[in-house]
Formats: sequence, C-alpha cells, structure tokens
Amino acid sequence: MELFNQYRFIGCDADYESSEIVLFGAPFDGTSSYRAGSRFAPSKIRMDSYGLETYSPYSERDLTDYAIHDAGDIECTFGNKVTVLNDIETFCDQVVGAGKVPVMIGGEHLVTLGLAKALVKKYPDLHVLHFDAHTDLREDYMGEPLSHATVIRRIYDILGDGRIFQFGIRSGTRVEFDFAASGEHVFMRRFDTVGLDKIAASLVGKPVLITIDLDILDPSIFPGTGTPEPGGISFKEMLEAIQNFIPLNIVGADLVELSPDYDPTGVSTAVASKLIREVLLSVK
Amino acid sequence: MELFNQYRFIGCDADYESSEIVLFGAPFDGTSSYRAGSRFAPSKIRMDSYGLETYSPYSERDLTDYAIHDAGDIECTFGNKVTVLNDIETFCDQVVGAGKVPVMIGGEHLVTLGLAKALVKKYPDLHVLHFDAHTDLREDYMGEPLSHATVIRRIYDILGDGRIFQFGIRSGTRVEFDFAASGEHVFMRRFDTVGLDKIAASLVGKPVLITIDLDILDPSIFPGTGTPEPGGISFKEMLEAIQNFIPLNIVGADLVELSPDYDPTGVSTAVASKLIREVLLSVK
Amino acid sequence: MELFNQYRFIGCDADYESSEIVLFGAPFDGTSSYRAGSRFAPSKIRMDSYGLETYSPYSERDLTDYAIHDAGDIECTFGNKVTVLNDIETFCDQVVGAGKVPVMIGGEHLVTLGLAKALVKKYPDLHVLHFDAHTDLREDYMGEPLSHATVIRRIYDILGDGRIFQFGIRSGTRVEFDFAASGEHVFMRRFDTVGLDKIAASLVGKPVLITIDLDILDPSIFPGTGTPEPGGISFKEMLEAIQNFIPLNIVGADLVELSPDYDPTGVSTAVASKLIREVLLSVK
Amino acid sequence: MELFNQYRFIGCDADYESSEIVLFGAPFDGTSSYRAGSRFAPSKIRMDSYGLETYSPYSERDLTDYAIHDAGDIECTFGNKVTVLNDIETFCDQVVGAGKVPVMIGGEHLVTLGLAKALVKKYPDLHVLHFDAHTDLREDYMGEPLSHATVIRRIYDILGDGRIFQFGIRSGTRVEFDFAASGEHVFMRRFDTVGLDKIAASLVGKPVLITIDLDILDPSIFPGTGTPEPGGISFKEMLEAIQNFIPLNIVGADLVELSPDYDPTGVSTAVASKLIREVLLSVK
Amino acid sequence: MELFNQYRFIGCDADYESSEIVLFGAPFDGTSSYRAGSRFAPSKIRMDSYGLETYSPYSERDLTDYAIHDAGDIECTFGNKVTVLNDIETFCDQVVGAGKVPVMIGGEHLVTLGLAKALVKKYPDLHVLHFDAHTDLREDYMGEPLSHATVIRRIYDILGDGRIFQFGIRSGTRVEFDFAASGEHVFMRRFDTVGLDKIAASLVGKPVLITIDLDILDPSIFPGTGTPEPGGISFKEMLEAIQNFIPLNIVGADLVELSPDYDPTGVSTAVASKLIREVLLSVK
Amino acid sequence: MELFNQYRFIGCDADYESSEIVLFGAPFDGTSSYRAGSRFAPSKIRMDSYGLETYSPYSERDLTDYAIHDAGDIECTFGNKVTVLNDIETFCDQVVGAGKVPVMIGGEHLVTLGLAKALVKKYPDLHVLHFDAHTDLREDYMGEPLSHATVIRRIYDILGDGRIFQFGIRSGTRVEFDFAASGEHVFMRRFDTVGLDKIAASLVGKPVLITIDLDILDPSIFPGTGTPEPGGISFKEMLEAIQNFIPLNIVGADLVELSPDYDPTGVSTAVASKLIREVLLSVK
Repeated sequence: MELFNQYRFIGCDADYESSEIVLFGAPFDGTSSYRAGSRFAPSKIRMDSYGLETYSPYSERDLTDYAIHDAGDIECTFGNKVTVLNDIETFCDQVVGAGKVPVMIGGEHLVTLGLAKALVKKYPDLHVLHFDAHTDLREDYMGEPLSHATVIRRIYDILGDGRIFQFGIRSGTRVEFDFAASGEHVFMRRFDTVGLDKIAASLVGKPVLITIDLDILDPSIFPGTGTPEPGGISFKEMLEAIQNFIPLNIVGADLVELSPDYDPTGVSTAVASKLIREVLLSVK
Repeated sequence: MELFNQYRFIGCDADYESSEIVLFGAPFDGTSSYRAGSRFAPSKIRMDSYGLETYSPYSERDLTDYAIHDAGDIECTFGNKVTVLNDIETFCDQVVGAGKVPVMIGGEHLVTLGLAKALVKKYPDLHVLHFDAHTDLREDYMGEPLSHATVIRRIYDILGDGRIFQFGIRSGTRVEFDFAASGEHVFMRRFDTVGLDKIAASLVGKPVLITIDLDILDPSIFPGTGTPEPGGISFKEMLEAIQNFIPLNIVGADLVELSPDYDPTGVSTAVASKLIREVLLSVK
Repeated sequence: MELFNQYRFIGCDADYESSEIVLFGAPFDGTSSYRAGSRFAPSKIRMDSYGLETYSPYSERDLTDYAIHDAGDIECTFGNKVTVLNDIETFCDQVVGAGKVPVMIGGEHLVTLGLAKALVKKYPDLHVLHFDAHTDLREDYMGEPLSHATVIRRIYDILGDGRIFQFGIRSGTRVEFDFAASGEHVFMRRFDTVGLDKIAASLVGKPVLITIDLDILDPSIFPGTGTPEPGGISFKEMLEAIQNFIPLNIVGADLVELSPDYDPTGVSTAVASKLIREVLLSVK
Repeated sequence: MELFNQYRFIGCDADYESSEIVLFGAPFDGTSSYRAGSRFAPSKIRMDSYGLETYSPYSERDLTDYAIHDAGDIECTFGNKVTVLNDIETFCDQVVGAGKVPVMIGGEHLVTLGLAKALVKKYPDLHVLHFDAHTDLREDYMGEPLSHATVIRRIYDILGDGRIFQFGIRSGTRVEFDFAASGEHVFMRRFDTVGLDKIAASLVGKPVLITIDLDILDPSIFPGTGTPEPGGISFKEMLEAIQNFIPLNIVGADLVELSPDYDPTGVSTAVASKLIREVLLSVK
Repeated sequence: MELFNQYRFIGCDADYESSEIVLFGAPFDGTSSYRAGSRFAPSKIRMDSYGLETYSPYSERDLTDYAIHDAGDIECTFGNKVTVLNDIETFCDQVVGAGKVPVMIGGEHLVTLGLAKALVKKYPDLHVLHFDAHTDLREDYMGEPLSHATVIRRIYDILGDGRIFQFGIRSGTRVEFDFAASGEHVFMRRFDTVGLDKIAASLVGKPVLITIDLDILDPSIFPGTGTPEPGGISFKEMLEAIQNFIPLNIVGADLVELSPDYDPTGVSTAVASKLIREVLLSVK
Repeated sequence: MELFNQYRFIGCDADYESSEIVLFGAPFDGTSSYRAGSRFAPSKIRMDSYGLETYSPYSERDLTDYAIHDAGDIECTFGNKVTVLNDIETFCDQVVGAGKVPVMIGGEHLVTLGLAKALVKKYPDLHVLHFDAHTDLREDYMGEPLSHATVIRRIYDILGDGRIFQFGIRSGTRVEFDFAASGEHVFMRRFDTVGLDKIAASLVGKPVLITIDLDILDPSIFPGTGTPEPGGISFKEMLEAIQNFIPLNIVGADLVELSPDYDPTGVSTAVASKLIREVLLSVK
C-alpha cells in the first residue's frame, strides 16, 4: 500500500530492465576550491522537479513517452576522491554494458572523469561537447592532478587531440588559454556557443559525451553554483544549444555544479531541472 | 495630527469619490500548488513602492498627475476560495458601477476570475490580454475546477471563443497546448510577446481586461513567484508590451503571483512596483 | 540495480506488511492564515534526516531495532480541504485496521482531524495529548469551521469533555481561553509542560493520540513555522515530555507545522527530524 | 468605501483625540556603526503585527480595551541627525502636552534623545529604566557626540546622577564600565535584570521613561539587530521585566534597534511586536 | 613568518611607493535613503576576489603585470558626512600628488565628491564619465545638499557645463530630467550606453574621472544594491563600455553602491570584483 | 601610507616576534559529510570581529593588554587532507618551538589532528579538553580513517587512555558511546559540561589542548555549522566553561566548525568571535 512518492525525477518511472536511459546522481564536491555544496544537487533537483511539466513546448516531446529509470545516487565518501571516481566508473560500466545511456547529475565537475572513463572503454572514438565558464584545463591545481579545475585536462590525457569541443569559456589562467589557442589540442569557443551547429554537424555518427557545467549560464539566471562567473550565456541560448544534440549519437551526458544552498530563490534548481528534461528528451 | 503614512502605493493618494482608478489588493493564494505566499504581495508592494519615483522616464508621465485611489485589501478567508471570489466580485461591481477602473494586485491568478466576472456584467464584449508563463487552460486541476491552473479556462467558459489573447506561454500539458493550437478558442503566442502590437491594434475601441501573471518574466529578474519558469521575457520586453496598452480602452487590470518571501533581494517586488506604475500610467 | 536512495526517513526501511509503525506525510497547508509552506515539510524532513544518527543517546534505543515503514505522502489537492481530510482518514483507516500505529508528518494542524477521525472509530475511548502554542479552540475562523485554528475544537466536538489535554498554550482569543478556563471541557496548561507527568500517569492503559504542533517550541530553536510565538518551551523540555509517552498506549501521533522555507539555516528541520526519531522510539 | 487596511499596529485603532497612548515610528538609523536597517522596523512591525492576537495571556488584558492611536512615522532625513532629533522632540512635545503617553518604535537608539528631551520639559524629575546589551555611555564616538553609542550619556548630561537604571549590559569599553562602577552616576546591572523589582518599587510615583534596546535579548531569539551580542536575556525574562512596569507612572516608552533585513525568519519582528503589545498593556 | 593573507584585492600586491594605481575603500553609506549597507562592500569584495582569476580573457591582460597597491580603507565616522568627505579628499590629495591613480571602492555614491574634489585641484580640466541608474542631479534631498541623490549636481557645481556625461539613467524626478534635457548642462543618455564610443573619442587626451554606480546594471545580475532599478544594462554591455576607457587618460575611478547584505547568492559581489579587475586593467 | 586595515582579528596586532599567542586559520573542510563551508570561517570571523569590543566584562580583561599575533591562514589544498594536516603540523611546530601558544580557527574538526601532533612532540604528557556535540570517536568513516568524525579517535591513538575529556556529547553511534562508557579510554560527559570544574582542577600543571567544536552550542544560538544538533549547551554555559581554563597551562587551543554560509543573520559568527576573545583572554 504505497502512497505518492515524489522522490524520482518527474516522469522517470521506468524500471531499470526496461529503461533506455538511466538517470543517477553523483553527489560529490570534495575538491571544490571556492563554494562547495553541489553534493546536495541530486536530491534537491528531484524534489523540485515536481514543479515541472513532463511536456516540453520546445521539443514538443513528453518525458512520459520515454523509458527512463532514476537509479538514485552513488554513495560518496567525502575525503576520498579516488574511491568516488571508481564507484562512478563501476556503475557506468554496468549501465553502458547494458546498452543504456547514463545521464549523471553532479556533484562537482570532477565526477565527469568517472563517466568518461567508463564510456571510452566501450566507445574508443568518444568525442566530448563541453559547456562551461571555466577551461578546466590545468595540469594540476595546487599540486593535485584530480580536481574540478583539471577534469577536462585529465579527459584530454585519455582522448588526445581533436576530441574535445569547449563552449562558453570565460575564465582561466593565461596558461590554460594558451594551451587552447592553437586549436590543435582542443577546440575552444570563448564566451558563447557560436559555431556549435557546425561542430555538431561534424560529429554526427560519432559517440558523443555531453558535459554541461551549469556555470556556463549567466549567474543572473543561475546563481547557485560554486564559482559564479558574470558574462555567461542565457537560458535560451542553452536551450538552443541542446536542440543541436538531437541528431547526435549521445552515449552519455551530465549536468554538474548546481549548489542549491547558494540558491535561496530556487531558480537555479528550476533551471537545472528544466535542462535535465530537455537533455533527456534530446538523447533519444 | 498625522505623520507621514507610507502605506498607500506611492502617488495614489486620491480619495475614492474623486478617483478615476481604484487600486486594491486581493491577498489570496489558497490554491497555489507549488510555492504559496502571494498573499503577502499587496502589503510588500505598497511598502517598497517608496523606493520608486512617481515620474516615469518611459512614458514621461507622473502618477501625481492622475486621480488614483488605493482602497486597501479584500479580507480573504483562507480555505474558502468561493467566498473570496465573491468578495472580489462584489467590490469590483461597485467600482465598475461607479465608472472607475479597478486595478488589482494579487494574490494568485485565481483572483482574476472575480474581477472578470464583475467586468463582463458591465462590458459583455470584454476581451482579455493575458501575459503568463503558463496556459492556465486546464479543465480542472486534480479534480478541482477553481484553481490558479484553470482560471483562464473558467474565463473562457464565460467569454467563449476569440476573446482571449495569451502571450509568453512556455509551460503546460500537451492537452492545454492542443486546446490552443487551432487558434479557434484562444490566441496563444508561445515564449514571447511578438505580435502584440497587431493584436492590440485590432482591439482598439473594445473593452479590455489586462491580466499579467508576473511569472511571464524570466526568473532572472523575477524569482519571487510560485512556480518560476526559466526562459521568460525580459523586463524591457514587458515595458514595451505595456506601451501597447495606451490606445486601448482598459476597463480593468491586474498583476498577480508575486510571492515576496521567495524574493530575498527585494528585486521582484521592485519589478512588480514599477510595472504597476507603468500599468497605472497606461490606463488613462 | 539500485543505488542508495535516501528518500525514506532514516532507519525506516521496513516494508508495509511487516511494519508495526507506519510513517507518512500529509503535505497540506491550505488553511494557513499567516505563512504557509508546511506542505514542504515531509520531503525536507526525509532529505535532511540523513544528518541524524539512528541511535538516540536520550532513550538509548536505535531506530534500526524497530519495524517502521515510510509509506510516502498523501497526494493533496490544494483548494479542497474536505477531499484532503477524507484521503487522510481513508489511509489511516487501513493502517489502524491492520493493527499498526500511524505517525503523520504535517502539513498544517488541520490534518490531525483526518487522523483523529480514523482513530476514534477503532478506539472510541481515545484521549489526546496536545502540544501547541495556540489553543486551536475557535468555533470558526472567519466563518470557516475547518481550519488550522479550529482543529482541536472539531476534535472536541467528537470526543467531548475530559479527553483533551493541552500544554504550552500561549496564544489565542479571550473567548478561547475562557472556554478552557473551567477545566471541564479541556485541560489547558499555559506556557509550559508542567504537570504532564501526572496527566500521563492518569492515561496509562487508555488509547492516546499525540499531536505536536511544533510551534510549541520557542522560535529561537524553531523559527520555521507559520506563526512563530516567542515564549515557547525549549528543545530539552520537549524531549523530556516525550519520555512521558513511553508507558502509554500510543495509537497514533503526528508532528505538524514545520514550514521549511522559513528556516534558512535548516535548524527547524533538524529539530523536527530528531523529535520524530524520539517519538518513533517512544511508541513501542 | 474602504477595505481592510492592515497598516496600523493591530488593535491601535483609536483616533488621536480620544487616545490615551500615541504609538509612532522614528525610522532613523543614520549613526549605526555596524549593521544599519532599523529604519525599516516600524513598517515591518505594523505589517507583521497581524500575526499577533490582541489578547495577552500574560497580563490577561486586551489591546482593544484601550484607546491607542497609531500616528504613523516621523519622516526622517538621512544624513542629518540634528533635524531628525528635533522633529521627534517637536512631535513628542505635542503628544506630551496633550496629556498622552508617547510610545516610540525606533530606529536606532539615538532617537531616544528626542523623546527624552520632550519628556524632561514636562517632567523635570524624569527617571529612566534602560534595557540594553550596550552601555551607550561613551563621551563621544569617533569624535561625534550624537550617536547610538552615546545616547544614554547625553541623557545623563541632562538628568544628572541617580536618574538612570541600566539592565542587561554586557558590552562596552573599560572606560564606560568604570564610569558606571561606582554607582554614583548611573545604576548598572550587568548581564541580566536581577534587582529590577526593587528598583521599580523605589520609582513608584515618579515619572518614568522606559527605553528598551531590543538587543538586550539574546540573539538566539532576537538576531535581527545591528550589533548582536550573545549572552543576553531570554524572552521570558523580558516579559517578566515588563510586569514590573505596571505599578509605575510611565510617561513615555520606546523599543529600538530591530533591523528586519537581518531577520530572515521573521522571528525578531514577532518578538518586537509581542513586546510592544505587552508594553502598551503595561502603560495604563 | 607570515601565512597566506587574502585580505588584499587579488593581484594588487605592490607596495605604495612602487605602485602606479592605488586601490582603496570608502565604506560610508550614511545618506542612503532606502537600503544601506554599502559600507560592507570593500571588505566583501576583497574577500571574494579570491574567486577571480588575475587574467582577463576580455582584455587579455593580467593584474599581476601591473603595479597596484591596495591601501585598505578610509575609516569613516557614521553620522558625519562632512568629516568623511574631507578624509577621502585628503587621502586622494596625497595619491594624486604622487602621480598615482586613485581607484576607490564605495560606499554610497556621495563618496565620489571627495575624490572629485581632490582630482579637480590637480586637473582643472577634469571630465566625468558617469554610469548610473539615477540622475543624482537633485539640488537637495529633503533639504540636504550633500546626499547620494545630489552628488553629481555637487560635482556639476564645481565643474560647470559640458563636463559630465551620464549613461544608463532611468530614474529621477521630472525636474532632474528637465535639467538634463537641453544637453547644455550635462550630457544624459537614458537607459543604455549607446553613444559612449563617440563621447569617449571626444575625450581623448583630457583628464577623466570614471564613476560607476553599479546600479546601472540590471538587478537580474546586480541585485545587491540600495535601490535596485529594473531595466538596466547587462554585464556584457558594461564590459564593452569599459573597453572604451582604454585610450583615455583616466586620472581616477570609482565603483560604488554594492550592498553585500542584499546579495545572498554572492553574485553581485562577483560582478563588482570582475568589473574592478577590468577597470584596473583599463587604467594603464 | 596605510589606511585602516581591518583584516586581523580585533586587538591582535602584535608582530610575530614579540607575541605570546599566535592566532591563525586553517580553512579546510574537505571531509565534511553533511554541510561544508567551514573553510570560510577564518575570513568571516576576522571581518566581523570589528563588531566586538576588545574589553570583556566577563573576565574584566582587554585584548589590547596582550601580545597576540594574527598570522593569517594556512593555504589549504582541497582534495588532499594529508597535505593539509602536514602543513598545519609544520606551522605549529614552529610556533610551539618558539615558546608561543598556537590558537587555531577551523575549518572542520579534522584540522585539530595537525595541531595535536605538533603539540605532543613538545608536550608528551598532553591532555585534551574536548567540547563537542559529537563523539568523533569512530574507527573510520565509510572506510576512511582521517575524517571530521574520527579525529578524536586518531588523537586517542596517539595519546592513549585517560588523556581525553569530552563534554556536551549528544550524537554518535551506539558503538562510539559503548567505547566511552567504561570511562577507561576517555572521559565522556553527555549533554552538558557538569563536572568540568573538577576535571579542570585535576589538570592543573599539565599541558592542555583545548578543542572546541562549536556545535556543542545549541543551534538556537549557533545555527551556522555543518551538522546542527538540537539540545546543546547555552552560550552562558560555554562562557562559564572557559572560566575554568584560566588556572590551566594551555599550550594550544582551537575553535572549529563555524560554517558562515549557513548563518544568514551573522549571529553564529558573532558567537565564535566572542568565544575566541574569551579563549585568548584565558590562555595567559
């Protein structure tokens, strides 16, 4: 005799076996250098997702038409990033192995490394579309190689030149911008998403990981994040970017860096929830 | 021997008899399905209106040049929406009967039904300009016919086809969007206010009710509302929309769904106050 | 393949069949006259309960030693209090009929009426221990008989004289205090819980409903409620009061009126969670 | 045709002529040295007073049994403390001259000087009961003689030795504490209100000004103030202190230093409102 | 043996003697008429500046390439605006006399008067680029000539016609707008910064004071200010405006009216910090 | 030419060489399992310490009579707790080696381990007075031996039986309470500080480390912490506890677990600042 249980993301009520997409949380923020708290994002997003409709007037699709399973959260050990990354990778190995698409809610950006490592084992030709305010291309951060500020560099170490496409970048050190400047290692579009349509067209047929650090958005609409960077893209620009995903072969996706305790109005969570809906609707 | 009393909306100091416009509050939010609190909007708006100037550089008009009476608030019984709607209608009957224009501050959107019922008695040819993020066109909400989510449908039940013009709509069920899709029942412009100028031109000479659910605005500038919906219009777009009201025969207006307790910075209240000023200046 | 799912109250992982106690939420606040928002209490309490230990150093008992089922929430229709009360009563009929003890998380205080009506059918000799800042003894509230401000009067209408014992009362109208003054109708202890031990001793063997309006607590420790009333009891006094429940035959219990959005520090939710733990540990 | 107007303090609906007590606001905070914002106290207190009952179970009196006029606020010029103090004094001259008792809501503590100057003209034998966390006995503050930190010293300059009785003091410079130590100039009780009953008994028949800096309260129950000082008295201690006023000839009173914008839960305002009710009920 | 000390603005570690630019704070807000609190801006900006990078991808310059000294704050006496303005002027006299460029963090806008008076002594041909939501052109404010609402008028009194160029103005009295309308006294661009490029070009070679009241920004991105005015410019528009400063001879600059306590998400402080970085990088 | 620089703890202006006490921050919170943010405590405490007086009416001592140096903060690498602990230990080695007393502001409780390790090298007979809501006696936390939840156990591993005295404990697992129950390993006083005077008397002449996890305080007065635990001691009880330190040979002290971002009123920071003042005044 069960009552209403609102603790799955709205419209994600398929069981694991029958699902095509598996949504899960990775509530880890142990390397955040400024404001932590993205650990609370998966819970808050699920709870507030009940303010959403399942129908999207943008894509004219409805979540209830898809088989999406909300698997809950990776249990994260604070103070041990290596264990956490291993646990994410192990879980994603299973999901990917079962032919399903993992969609992860962070946590901080470092969690993407666990997802990427699982994906690249199955899809050696993996390409990455990366949306962010920050380059995340440091070789290390205060001596540490594993950090939210180095995560894309670590993925680059695995994938090599020509696989990573960055958009919206507006903060980093001179060294990081110089690393990207030639275009040989990564593609970097500063400040906005101009040119995404062409990049996306060139990726059709290839396995693609979408990683969205939500701080790409302007803090006017997304204040609830660890390091807010004024000068970001608007919600409508992000929505339009997501429309570009539809023709692609998306094999995994994540949305990271919502920090709900810095979001007293709840608007950042509402933004994250709506973008998760749109990403889910774009995957298949 | 009275001191300064800031508890009228700034510049609305006419007495009832001599007034052309009657401003009043309807602090009811009893059917809000997500976050309540619009009950506190009229008080907070009046108090914070003293951060406004009475002069508008947009319309180059000044509130002190008009005869506007601030009548205070309808006393609302929580838990009885029928009584509340009746009380609003009764009050508006008197205002409308005296040839004055009622301008109501909500409260949730359901209060518009009381205002509309009073207006349609005097103006059977009433038309409605509706600004909102949500369709509000449900037949019922969890079985209830009277709800903030059904209010425009209830007004449609009274007015019939061709009288309601919706702008900015970006959330609803597929059924609601389908209801509007043909254009036969209501006119619906999704996402923005494009085309308002033409609609307004076609309404010149007809009695018009303006109903502004403030959540049409993007939550970056208006977070303090029950169900914030990212992807809304900007403040400047709303200001421009209001300029279109000037040639019209506005017989009533409302601004609803400010929820001040979800507005820790006070900006949403500042937005509501300035829009009320602009609406008042557009009525006559 | 399920991950960690934190969306049950911590330590309440029994299935329904094997459970002795059934915890559930009634997220309704439709008659709140001042600040609403207790609708969000059950969700927030479950989420934050993971900051608690299952072990209580007060009672030296552990939640994991008991068979408690968390059934989720009653789905509440805003704007229709009658439907909501019926739904609560129907659910509790089943729980009570199965010989289990229902423990309800409000919502506002009116929800207690649904629980009481289910209990009195099975236990005609029901007695009520009522902890509250407010008398809740009005005959009606602005004409409405069903309200958070009348709920104890409505239960009195069912149970009659001598069954209701109130503690901590510090706000009400003169009429309400006069109603209680003789002691004939209800027992009322103003301001604190002195004398609870004797009352409890006199109730041993009788079926008892515990109803705790959390605003009995001083707002220094429990600000997150609809109508905070300075001058309340301390957390330690409430803990001691709960120790008096242990010898009793508790057939139902509730804790109501946490409003998390007025609790920016999270302390009120922490208080509610710990008291729920202590109440659960006192039931059996 | 007026609706409900909640912008008087609850139960203070007498007109000026017939009133015995005149409540008014002095929303000035221009010399606050740490956190300002007490300028918003009178408005917020009136608005939130509608969460109060008019009946007090402490004194078993009801505001509606008294003739109290709420006169609104002194209009304060920020940046000119001299003008403000003059305006307060002028208004109080009229009230006192009419045989009424002025009760002032601050604003910062400096406003008390205007009230005191008006009172001492009519009552040369004025005595002062002063409740505060701070001594307010500085000769000057960074060179300025008129400051919230010097206000009691300025009143002392007028009244001289033996007229001022301080309670709850727990912060100041060594020089200030030394000034009070002998007991010759002022009576100072540190930390609490012990001994107030005897002091009050000694003042029966003399004209008394009550000045309550609300920061005497512990910040657990009153965080919303300019300079919160942990270690203060409880709400119940303050209530008990007020009972001592009943036999006295209170010729004026004030409650100052609520700063609502530092009170996100609204509890400090609820405390201030209830204490104003109790002070009003103690005056006559 | 010193540890890390984060209490200078990031990248401003030059000593006074060797510095070309001197950054300092003027934490005064004594004439603020609505919400105070800009007194806390300099401290908060320095502390949060450690969330910034020293490198700007906009100008492709790095703070560490410049010799900037952070001198700390003017110690301000609340309640005495004349003393404060004198202290600012005296400090700036020294900085300007040493051939350095003073860059001031307010505080409210009145502090600009102290800076301007120091500059005009050395640079009689001083011109002012003024960015603001408000005209600040009143002759007096409630009788006071020195106020945040009169500061530009006071500077006009010194400089005379044709020296002041205002951008973004959207609030003021009719009298103020009329004063500016002819263009004879001041140049006023309403609502945005269109035309700044031409004005800037005409100022090349002349000594220029930049004064940025941060409330020129839309409150969606800058809510944390005394009087938020919806309808402002975007962060990107402000960034572009600053690019126009590079060819100019900037002899002083300020950024005023951040009020951190009305900025619960920290975004306003992040905006102010980034703009200070960009202004510093544009000076030389 | 330096201005006022408020970025040292008030009254701690001695240089390192001449100082007897060295205050420093350890802004690390990398193992926090619930709410992080204590990394911001040292900065916020210093900034808000300017709301304090240097004089204490409790001890009748003044900070300006002592030679205290504020050394700034350990620069902490997030994501590497081992490095952080080493850096703390290295710094404390120097301070202790110079015959000075280190007083550390956390950060989370794990930082105490670095301080303790430095002290025990010089003072092998070190004893620990531990004030906390939590036992912190776990053998490991989710497999990790170094955690805020294991820190006292790690110190116990070094010191052995009979050296640690815990007060105020009210949360932990049954295993932890069982570990302490015999009294053989550690002394544990549950809920309050009763008996501290006798313990303190027994420690006279021995080297003592004071470690205060501020969550020992009730969350009514100290909400701003990672895991608030209702039922704590009052501020006055903590003040009285500190008086017991005066006769002791305190060789080090810390105050940890203030998390300012969960303290919207600033009261928790005010509490921490005042307790730091009192601890500093008790050391010598």
